Amino acid sequence: MLSSRIARQAGRFSPATIASIGRGSRSAAQSRTLFTKTPKASPATPTARSWKLLALRQTQARQLSGAPLPRSTSRLLNFAYRTAAWFGSSVVVISAGVVAFFLYDASTYKSDGMHGEVAVSQLALNPRRGGPKNLPILEACIDDDDTEEMQKQKDKPKLVILGGGWGSVALLKELNPDNYHVTVISPTNYFLFTPMLPSATVGTLELKSLMEPIRRIIHDVKGHFIRASADDVDFSARLVEVSQVDCSGHEERFYVPYDKLVIGVGSVTNSHGVKGLENCHFLKDISDARQIRNKIIQNLEVSCLPTTSDEERRRLLSFVVCGGGPTGVEFAAEIFDLLNEDLTLHFPRLLRNEISVHLIQSRDHILNTYDETLSKYAEERFARDQVEVLTNSRVGEVRADSIVFSQKRDDGSVVTKEIPMGFCLWSTGVSQSDLCQRLAERLGDAQTNRHALETDTHLRLNGTPLGDVYAIGDCSTVQNNVADHIVSFLRRLAWKRGKDPESLELHFSDWRAVATQVKKQFPQAVGHLKRLDKLFHEYDKDQSGTLGFGELRELLKQIDSKLTSLPATAQRANQQGQYLAHKFNKLARAQEGLAANDIIEGDLDAAVYKAFEYRHLGSLAYIGNSAVFDFGQGWSMAGGLWAVYAWRSIYFAQSVSFRTRVLMAMDWAKRSMFGRDLSSF
Amino acid sequence: MLSSRIARQAGRFSPATIASIGRGSRSAAQSRTLFTKTPKASPATPTARSWKLLALRQTQARQLSGAPLPRSTSRLLNFAYRTAAWFGSSVVVISAGVVAFFLYDASTYKSDGMHGEVAVSQLALNPRRGGPKNLPILEACIDDDDTEEMQKQKDKPKLVILGGGWGSVALLKELNPDNYHVTVISPTNYFLFTPMLPSATVGTLELKSLMEPIRRIIHDVKGHFIRASADDVDFSARLVEVSQVDCSGHEERFYVPYDKLVIGVGSVTNSHGVKGLENCHFLKDISDARQIRNKIIQNLEVSCLPTTSDEERRRLLSFVVCGGGPTGVEFAAEIFDLLNEDLTLHFPRLLRNEISVHLIQSRDHILNTYDETLSKYAEERFARDQVEVLTNSRVGEVRADSIVFSQKRDDGSVVTKEIPMGFCLWSTGVSQSDLCQRLAERLGDAQTNRHALETDTHLRLNGTPLGDVYAIGDCSTVQNNVADHIVSFLRRLAWKRGKDPESLELHFSDWRAVATQVKKQFPQAVGHLKRLDKLFHEYDKDQSGTLGFGELRELLKQIDSKLTSLPATAQRANQQGQYLAHKFNKLARAQEGLAANDIIEGDLDAAVYKAFEYRHLGSLAYIGNSAVFDFGQGWSMAGGLWAVYAWRSIYFAQSVSFRTRVLMAMDWAKRSMFGRDLSSF
Repeated sequence: MLSSRIARQAGRFSPATIASIGRGSRSAAQSRTLFTKTPKASPATPTARSWKLLALRQTQARQLSGAPLPRSTSRLLNFAYRTAAWFGSSVVVISAGVVAFFLYDASTYKSDGMHGEVAVSQLALNPRRGGPKNLPILEACIDDDDTEEMQKQKDKPKLVILGGGWGSVALLKELNPDNYHVTVISPTNYFLFTPMLPSATVGTLELKSLMEPIRRIIHDVKGHFIRASADDVDFSARLVEVSQVDCSGHEERFYVPYDKLVIGVGSVTNSHGVKGLENCHFLKDISDARQIRNKIIQNLEVSCLPTTSDEERRRLLSFVVCGGGPTGVEFAAEIFDLLNEDLTLHFPRLLRNEISVHLIQSRDHILNTYDETLSKYAEERFARDQVEVLTNSRVGEVRADSIVFSQKRDDGSVVTKEIPMGFCLWSTGVSQSDLCQRLAERLGDAQTNRHALETDTHLRLNGTPLGDVYAIGDCSTVQNNVADHIVSFLRRLAWKRGKDPESLELHFSDWRAVATQVKKQFPQAVGHLKRLDKLFHEYDKDQSGTLGFGELRELLKQIDSKLTSLPATAQRANQQGQYLAHKFNKLARAQEGLAANDIIEGDLDAAVYKAFEYRHLGSLAYIGNSAVFDFGQGWSMAGGLWAVYAWRSIYFAQSVSFRTRVLMAMDWAKRSMFGRDLSSF
Repeated sequence: MLSSRIARQAGRFSPATIASIGRGSRSAAQSRTLFTKTPKASPATPTARSWKLLALRQTQARQLSGAPLPRSTSRLLNFAYRTAAWFGSSVVVISAGVVAFFLYDASTYKSDGMHGEVAVSQLALNPRRGGPKNLPILEACIDDDDTEEMQKQKDKPKLVILGGGWGSVALLKELNPDNYHVTVISPTNYFLFTPMLPSATVGTLELKSLMEPIRRIIHDVKGHFIRASADDVDFSARLVEVSQVDCSGHEERFYVPYDKLVIGVGSVTNSHGVKGLENCHFLKDISDARQIRNKIIQNLEVSCLPTTSDEERRRLLSFVVCGGGPTGVEFAAEIFDLLNEDLTLHFPRLLRNEISVHLIQSRDHILNTYDETLSKYAEERFARDQVEVLTNSRVGEVRADSIVFSQKRDDGSVVTKEIPMGFCLWSTGVSQSDLCQRLAERLGDAQTNRHALETDTHLRLNGTPLGDVYAIGDCSTVQNNVADHIVSFLRRLAWKRGKDPESLELHFSDWRAVATQVKKQFPQAVGHLKRLDKLFHEYDKDQSGTLGFGELRELLKQIDSKLTSLPATAQRANQQGQYLAHKFNKLARAQEGLAANDIIEGDLDAAVYKAFEYRHLGSLAYIGNSAVFDFGQGWSMAGGLWAVYAWRSIYFAQSVSFRTRVLMAMDWAKRSMFGRDLSSF
């Protein structure tokens, strides 16, 4: 590059100067070439022009040639050459990248519409009616014949998935594309990356960056999407009853038939019976996030008006968060960030001074499911950041302009307090949706949990006669009835052998067999069945060397009590979705053999795949320019900015698609460059 | 780099090999250095290690050193060296950029809240009441003492700007920061980049990328922002009456006093008296754009339902645009792009076949303000893209599911037609807002235009007694009453000289003086006053060699008739805003001299700055993977993808801030990589 620059300058210097530079900086061979062409040229214009032309030709030919490298004994010139090469070539490579991107971009515009005959079966256009309510039945989809791959799937078993959250999406992403005719039914046509929702409320991330259209996700399994709500399931006819309000406001109802049904409809906010929740905001959906954002900015704007009194301004700028779980904590942290980093720049300083953030928690610590050191770290952090943490406090009523709660003091006495508030977020756990309540009632005694649908450890909904309905995610809970299950198993075994189960005596080897059975059926219990001999001796109260039936039941019941229900987190839903996908893939592969041997009954799920086992990978939370990590078993971590980057990296990696990752990265860069967005609409 | 690679390999080769490579590829001096350190080393391990260390040190020291460049006679090795240098150094420079960005990012997080005493005047916290309605008067703002610069502005003349559109923002961006105490009053707290709004409705751009918070723009002039609506102006008391609904739904009213007032409140949609506009969508605001986006996606989703009949599906997918101006045309083009480029990927193919786009235009061409060749180009383009253009058509009624219009045929007969529609956009010109109507009534005879506020050529609102109220943008029109103005001027002149104006006779020199006066006062008329002698002779009907008063009036009226009113575009508003900023800057500079000489009356505006002159820079429109440009005076241009890039470049350059430019570029890249966003919320 230096050589070419010298060559370019040649026209401006006398040949003598050029000769000296040339001799110093280029190989003898090259100097010779240069000088044979213009021997002893005078600085007259025509010669200078030919010099320039020559130099230009040389420059163009040299960029990535294999010709000898330019040579100079001057360290300065060498340094200049290297620096120029580094930066110059970077600029060229980056420019080439930009040009390439534009060329690619130009190729993405299409002008010719894809018109032509589209084959659609008559059954899809005019569906048959049937089922208990004589509604149209979706036996064929209008896009069943769109591509050859879709045509092939028409006769595959129908897999219907209700909901488009973490569980459903994990299932869709792991499912093999060719085995099932997949239909997803959800009232929202996007998947929402819920853990980042608190960030989106204050504009750290854009709402759009957390959304991935479900149609995009389904595309890989060549599935179908119906934007509608599932209202009921007829388990014996294998029909999902679906409703959707059409454009003129009229409700349309129809059935979607299934061979396998996955229920992943999530949960609704738990009101805990508190009055006045209509004065609260929730944070479950994208529209919630937008409302919160607008409300925050609305409060800030009204606080600037001259007609707003001091007292009113303080009320408007009092942000209350009910619930000290990760969502509540992260929201409080994000609010604080917004106010601290962006508000001061563009709003009157008075506002900054009047702002207060309050976090009301019913337990004695925030983040109470986390390691205790982390809870304390978070509390200290909040104390430093002037976020008021009110523990042992139970909200009694939310009024339009204040919140009433009772706080238990250290001495056990309870005081009732009232905080004026301009904004209240309610994030205190989850409750069952209407659909789940209806299904639980329909299944009767098989469902005893008031908060979620109970499944066995193969995630099959308890009580469904055909074993083809699964429930995953927040709407479900895996039943840990080790004692009941094993006892009835043993009872069956005893009767078969012609013995009275009550008189059964288990030797240590029998007990080991039972324990193996338990471990297989209830993977969550493995951790509690490590010292089999110790357990045996402990529960062998009469020191007989054998466990009686009653003693065994005691032992198993004690294990039951140690098994906690799985947390209602994205992590669990994700693992359950993946588990189902793997099982369905295996089932599809086994299908041929099963069909050949006429096996249509029996515990096929158990035959092809192990029971679901939840592996806790850790919990994390953002707490305002710092983050905490709880990896379980006492491993935990907390820190400042480096932890924030780590926290982001984890979610970045967990993100649903390359697209959302790019959008998230862009958003973080935007925040860095321009701050958070303070305009509302 | 090659040299370092060779040095690194040194440990693995025998010294003989190294010597041969070394001799070939590096300078004698360097080879010597290498070999003096390990003379005749055997390939034993310790020596090899020291070789490696040496090589490593050399590598690190060589990156940007001034040492001689590596040398090889092999063209292949030289080529490899250059290629590696190009790509390797690019990677390093890019990585360095990324690291630098992260370091910068880390510096943008703040942990310590800026707490402390904030000085706020009592007058700002408890405003005095007064004015005709005895409302609080905003004499001081709560952020007047926030910074030293703001403190300095407290006693400066109060400049109040109503509205935050193109005109206001252009004014704010050009205004010198130290001359005025600026207050902006607007019901929306962001500036909206309106020309790109059609793009945002279909997700080509994000809505956020078109919005720039006004507080950010005001920041440079250390101004104040009030999110509220201006309802009325008391011109004699110099008070703007402002109203804002507070958080509890109660309307608060107050006065904002001004020394100079700029009205830039824009316009509302013109209904043209058509029935059923509640069934239409408009495209003026960000919430309109969001509603349109959701409605489009809602229609697509409902079209996929099995309960939707064929006829209903065709209706849902019939998109009608009323109005063939740039907005209507661009929206039709964007809709077509969406359907053509993104819809086919993720929605059933049947939908693509059933979609229709209709554009209803009352004139005989779309884009009728553009050059005729461009109109035709656009129409041909649309015909190819299967967008139905219905010209000479007047909409009679918009029903919930269809649109009724009458079309004039070529033979002059009129037929009434009805198109079933699932979506209708109404974009047929602008009308006056409530505030402007009220102000026009208040100013009585001085305001005769039903559609906009009339100003003189210095943009002062006609009829205001103090000459301190200006109107810019869509809400205003510059009055071109050349004849009235000059005639009354001459009449005054004649009376002063004691002559009867009717008997006035102007010689050519007098006429030239009058023409100069006209050119100065009405810059728009310059183009029509080029051949003064020709005009003189033409209107000197009696060939007297002089122009009589009546003849002059005729001449001026003829010029009047040629002056068209300025278009209601962003371009005009922008130029008017800039014009006012320049004038205000000059006024502030002249203020000292004026005050010293006790000049407080007279035409100060005319004294310090020329009259406003609109310069048409051209019109452009996007018409679906192609664009048209009309530069006026018959210069025009139309083309495919290159024109689209040019169209984007112009708006990119016109964009309000670096921030919005970056966001727009990101959006275009997003569309290119991931397509348009098809999720609704």
